[in-house]
Amino acid sequence: MSDLFGRRVNMRGFPYESLPADVVADLENAARVCRALAVAMTTRANSGHPAGSLSSMKMYMAAYGVANLTPDNAADLDRDYIAISHGHTSPAAYATLAYYGFVDGLDAVREFRRCGSLFQGHVERDVPGIDWSSGDLGQGLSAGAGFALAQTARKNKSRVYVLMGDGEQGKGQLAEARRLIAARNLPVTALVDANDIQISGRVEDVMPIHLRQIWEADGWQVIECDGDNFPSLYAGLRQASLSDRPTVLICRTTMGQGVSFMEDRPDYHGKAATGDLYRQAMDELKAPDLVAMANSSSVRTAGAKMDRPRPALNVGAPRVYKLGEKVDCRSGFGNALSDVGAATKENGGGPLLVFDCDLAGSVKTADFSKKFPEWFVQGGIQEHSTATAAGSSSIAGAASVFAGFGMFALVEAYNQQRLNDINETNLTLALTHVGLDVGEDGKTHQCIDYVALAANCFGWKLIVPADANQTDRALRWAVQEGGNVCLAMGRSKLPVLELDGRPAFEKPFVYGDVVRLREGKNGAILALGAMANQALEAAALLAQKGIQVSVYSVSCPLVCCDETLKEAFETGAVLTLEDHNARTGMGSLWLARASELGLTGRALRLGVTHYGMSGPSSDVYAQMELDGQSVAERFARLIR
Amino acid sequence: MSDLFGRRVNMRGFPYESLPADVVADLENAARVCRALAVAMTTRANSGHPAGSLSSMKMYMAAYGVANLTPDNAADLDRDYIAISHGHTSPAAYATLAYYGFVDGLDAVREFRRCGSLFQGHVERDVPGIDWSSGDLGQGLSAGAGFALAQTARKNKSRVYVLMGDGEQGKGQLAEARRLIAARNLPVTALVDANDIQISGRVEDVMPIHLRQIWEADGWQVIECDGDNFPSLYAGLRQASLSDRPTVLICRTTMGQGVSFMEDRPDYHGKAATGDLYRQAMDELKAPDLVAMANSSSVRTAGAKMDRPRPALNVGAPRVYKLGEKVDCRSGFGNALSDVGAATKENGGGPLLVFDCDLAGSVKTADFSKKFPEWFVQGGIQEHSTATAAGSSSIAGAASVFAGFGMFALVEAYNQQRLNDINETNLTLALTHVGLDVGEDGKTHQCIDYVALAANCFGWKLIVPADANQTDRALRWAVQEGGNVCLAMGRSKLPVLELDGRPAFEKPFVYGDVVRLREGKNGAILALGAMANQALEAAALLAQKGIQVSVYSVSCPLVCCDETLKEAFETGAVLTLEDHNARTGMGSLWLARASELGLTGRALRLGVTHYGMSGPSSDVYAQMELDGQSVAERFARLIR
Repeated sequence: MSDLFGRRVNMRGFPYESLPADVVADLENAARVCRALAVAMTTRANSGHPAGSLSSMKMYMAAYGVANLTPDNAADLDRDYIAISHGHTSPAAYATLAYYGFVDGLDAVREFRRCGSLFQGHVERDVPGIDWSSGDLGQGLSAGAGFALAQTARKNKSRVYVLMGDGEQGKGQLAEARRLIAARNLPVTALVDANDIQISGRVEDVMPIHLRQIWEADGWQVIECDGDNFPSLYAGLRQASLSDRPTVLICRTTMGQGVSFMEDRPDYHGKAATGDLYRQAMDELKAPDLVAMANSSSVRTAGAKMDRPRPALNVGAPRVYKLGEKVDCRSGFGNALSDVGAATKENGGGPLLVFDCDLAGSVKTADFSKKFPEWFVQGGIQEHSTATAAGSSSIAGAASVFAGFGMFALVEAYNQQRLNDINETNLTLALTHVGLDVGEDGKTHQCIDYVALAANCFGWKLIVPADANQTDRALRWAVQEGGNVCLAMGRSKLPVLELDGRPAFEKPFVYGDVVRLREGKNGAILALGAMANQALEAAALLAQKGIQVSVYSVSCPLVCCDETLKEAFETGAVLTLEDHNARTGMGSLWLARASELGLTGRALRLGVTHYGMSGPSSDVYAQMELDGQSVAERFARLIR
Repeated sequence: MSDLFGRRVNMRGFPYESLPADVVADLENAARVCRALAVAMTTRANSGHPAGSLSSMKMYMAAYGVANLTPDNAADLDRDYIAISHGHTSPAAYATLAYYGFVDGLDAVREFRRCGSLFQGHVERDVPGIDWSSGDLGQGLSAGAGFALAQTARKNKSRVYVLMGDGEQGKGQLAEARRLIAARNLPVTALVDANDIQISGRVEDVMPIHLRQIWEADGWQVIECDGDNFPSLYAGLRQASLSDRPTVLICRTTMGQGVSFMEDRPDYHGKAATGDLYRQAMDELKAPDLVAMANSSSVRTAGAKMDRPRPALNVGAPRVYKLGEKVDCRSGFGNALSDVGAATKENGGGPLLVFDCDLAGSVKTADFSKKFPEWFVQGGIQEHSTATAAGSSSIAGAASVFAGFGMFALVEAYNQQRLNDINETNLTLALTHVGLDVGEDGKTHQCIDYVALAANCFGWKLIVPADANQTDRALRWAVQEGGNVCLAMGRSKLPVLELDGRPAFEKPFVYGDVVRLREGKNGAILALGAMANQALEAAALLAQKGIQVSVYSVSCPLVCCDETLKEAFETGAVLTLEDHNARTGMGSLWLARASELGLTGRALRLGVTHYGMSGPSSDVYAQMELDGQSVAERFARLIR
């Protein structure tokens, strides 16, 4: 394969003031082969996006050429990063990676868009040299921001390159990312493939976007260059690297560049060349029949390791909130976070980046921000971009915590958290103001869907602590656990829960553990998080009537505990209790599991059944019939 | 109450070249009272956002003053619209509405942020004079775009006013909305309360935003004015109304304006004045003790009717896809949509607006766009804003359909669809490429969470048709039904399903109906949408082994049918089948209900258990063990 490409250029930076003629010749020769590979991939798969891959090709080759990202250091943390935002141009990415020795080009041709292969339709992180899995447009610049934040916090002089299409320039998240990067002057170079064509036609006909103006308005340096010309691309990239401002290169290209019948034709956005047209393309690119070569090749590219090393943290000693105290979980979170910051700082660990969207006081990261300003990232009221940046930073050498209201950091940014899941990031997402416990802000602020959203993502772990002690231990566990962990907390001060005369949650946190707070033989209440309080109140009221119910504190709703379910159903009546949508929360997850286990008995899901009102939390719970009194009455009706 | 305000100014347009002195005096007098009302609301509730309400007050009064929106026409469709984006300044909205006679001011003071009252923490549509329920920042401009699109399509010369804060100017959705409005030159005037303070401090310290530049970059006229000065506001609004371009007024204000101890102080963003400070505020505003007056008032404002008239549609006659044909549901949708367009056009009905985000060819609205270009709205690759605009247009006189890939139009825009639900819009959301049936695009494009997302929203109806006939009938039903209805379809061509020798879905669509396609006594498969095909294949394979299973086609997963569940469990073994996340889809909803019903038997949820690969759909199903063969094997294991 490698002989096809000819001599491999390896710049890793900017060794030349301008690109020498022999280097240009080598690159041009390679570009021809790379373009042929990209066409062959889509022909072999009979799907994919050839024309955009062709116009982006030299942009890819130039960026990967100057970046300090090689097959040798791709598994390291401290190096340059490349985020690909228009992931559907994956054929260009795979061809470029083949040229620079990350993957085998014929393997990519043979396996492109095949079930089980590395070379999926949109670039994925398990391909060596790919730093971010993409697919949804408009998210790559935010991913780049996160890489740059982590590298800057690690005091590395890395640069981040972000490759984008022009169709996606309308996505609002890009504006958020531009501002985050400009506000902190992060070392980011963005490249836009301005081929002026998207699915529906010319970009200016579909939705006019004033490319130069919108980037300049957000404080970026804008350089226009010829995206089919290596010296022009190199000059632009070099100028960007010498600048003290984030810079975007608007690379003027022609869709389908290099293959005559694809040039400037919207219909090849998502259509492969077949038969004679494929052969014509190979002829024009002076390439052999790469599909045939690929079919007879058996080389397999090894996948990349996705769980990179993580920074050292010291989580310190847990705090003990005493029986009789009333503490809100979010304060328990904020205190523990400051503890982790201090202990980590003392041991020379970190960086521990804490992301905020203008809510530090409410989500209790204000103390951390004062003590560790260098580790605090203010994202502004720009949750989409902040969510992605927080995620990507956690795979580029930072330990990362994003704290926000449930409605903003998860509900608004659901798709971003889903993409973090796909990218197997290591984010701790601390949500406050979940459930109905949001104060008087009303329905638009009541995050009653977080269990379903987390459950939709296969990798996310979800913890809904029942009191401040559990929150404290859960946070210390989460930041060290790896993977994505969501902590979901309400707003109100809560009593410290008791078990056998001691604080119920003194011991280290164990993911999936269920704690039985009270034991009774007439029924069981499975209570999510802080709803344990309403369950205990209901149990006390029921006890006055001679009805003894067990109360289970469920803090990990995504981990159905079969033993708990069996034990609960043995009492004959099971009520699940949550201040979450009753249809999509713990109740459905756990009772469906009970059905699979063949457990029988009376069963009922209690939760939120319509949008809540705006009022003091206690009124809101009462109105929703989720206060202790109502729960007791509904339990009594269940067993009647 | 009304005497407090003095003389009420009623402009309803621009009767003056510049504002006469006596009108200014009347407005100034009223502004004083309105500010006192806003302070009193937050004091009485001991929560809320007084300072931003004070700085926005004159902006509110000016906009509601010139808009053709009055207590008399608020329930009509054809008039000016006002969208409030920074809904937390609701005290200013309620005070302004009191001044213009929509609501009672003392009622608002007494009931603000009380459970069950009209006057919630964030403005809601059930308050007369409020056109859009807000809460989440950054969405109001998109709502305004939708209003303007509907009114323009109705050929009305209405103007839309959008009131915003400056903190929210970072939200990416705003950039999307700006471009949509500019691209179509919609009659929108936006007003930004530039008080320069957000929760965390000065706007430029939290996240620098170059206000003038970003609006100009997207093609808007920018006018700066003094937001505490009625003549300046009036002049700006008038200039905007005379302009042929969308215009934003950057209203320079001071946070807390009018109450000395709140002025320019971030801490009164979300804190009420109590005790002596409340009295001082009333003194400075020369107002009586409004809290005391409110406490002794018993006036109750009547809520507004949220379901406004909808345009006449003619849905035409259903098409019949014959047995033996293979048709994709998305084509069934597109054909039916064109039919509805033609029949409606013929009858002089409509407008029927169809929204697209650069995917018309794939989601099969291309034919409609060619036949009815005046009803086709190209939103660009800007799903957040398009989703909101599509929703808001449907309560301003248009019938509205938004068609997109499930991943973009629902997963990315989940929060927007949730806000549409809260606003009780009448949107038909047509999703294609749901489930694993997306072609080779891979995990980022596999929408395997739509059931959970729809179930999270209390009002959304969800239909997952099993074939083209059902799709056809469901679409014709959905556009007439009112409320928000989501149609979820895959990508592939599917056989026309058969029942008793005829097409199974010939009859008109009935929401919630389950159809038993095959009957068997050894078990039952409940199959979601097009998974009926895999279920039928499995049933045929099982029949070869002498195992007879019933196959139920479930197309409305949010409506658990108790009768179906009972019938299914009577067979002794129930398998739910969906190409959706197995944890959060139909299976959990229905089996949890089975548990509540006390039904017993063997039960199992089959669905997607990890992110899928990129490959041809049939390979993807096989790999996920959701093809007919795998389903048969898993059923056989279940009953073993």
